[in-house]
Amino acid sequence: MYVILVYDVNVNRVNKVLKTARRYLTWVQNSVLEGELTEATYRALKNDLTRIIDPEEDSVLFYILGNTKYTKRELLGIKKGGEEWIY
Amino acid sequence: MYVILVYDVNVNRVNKVLKTARRYLTWVQNSVLEGELTEATYRALKNDLTRIIDPEEDSVLFYILGNTKYTKRELLGIKKGGEEWIY
Repeated sequence: MYVILVYDVNVNRVNKVLKTARRYLTWVQNSVLEGELTEATYRALKNDLTRIIDPEEDSVLFYILGNTKYTKRELLGIKKGGEEWIY
Repeated sequence: MYVILVYDVNVNRVNKVLKTARRYLTWVQNSVLEGELTEATYRALKNDLTRIIDPEEDSVLFYILGNTKYTKRELLGIKKGGEEWIY
């Protein structure tokens, strides 16, 4: 499964959320990461983040693409992520 | 086509980018909007944003989902967008 993660968390927790998410996914842009995960690693990522965020203030949204064949990406401006995008 | 837009732009242009994107899409979370667009309105949105951003500093990334049947979303924490999500 291909996962896009976007987070909107309090500045006090941004570094911890980003550091944790980067253990699983590739950084794409400010507050956005993506990558291919198994069901198990996706679950582990969610567990890790649940322990960090404040559920009354923070928001972490996942888009799970079952099939990237039906998804395109398009960029205006500069590419910020340092690593290669998978698809 | 269903479009997810994530932006990472200089603070001087954030308001203008957000205001423009909201004319076409629903605000979901800080720096993230989404919605159903036609090819023509998607093109119009890109044209409008191209006139606002500095392509050497700003980044606007679109994910275009041809078929939302293969896409799920999952949220940790609070739902920030005020409007109903379409899918």
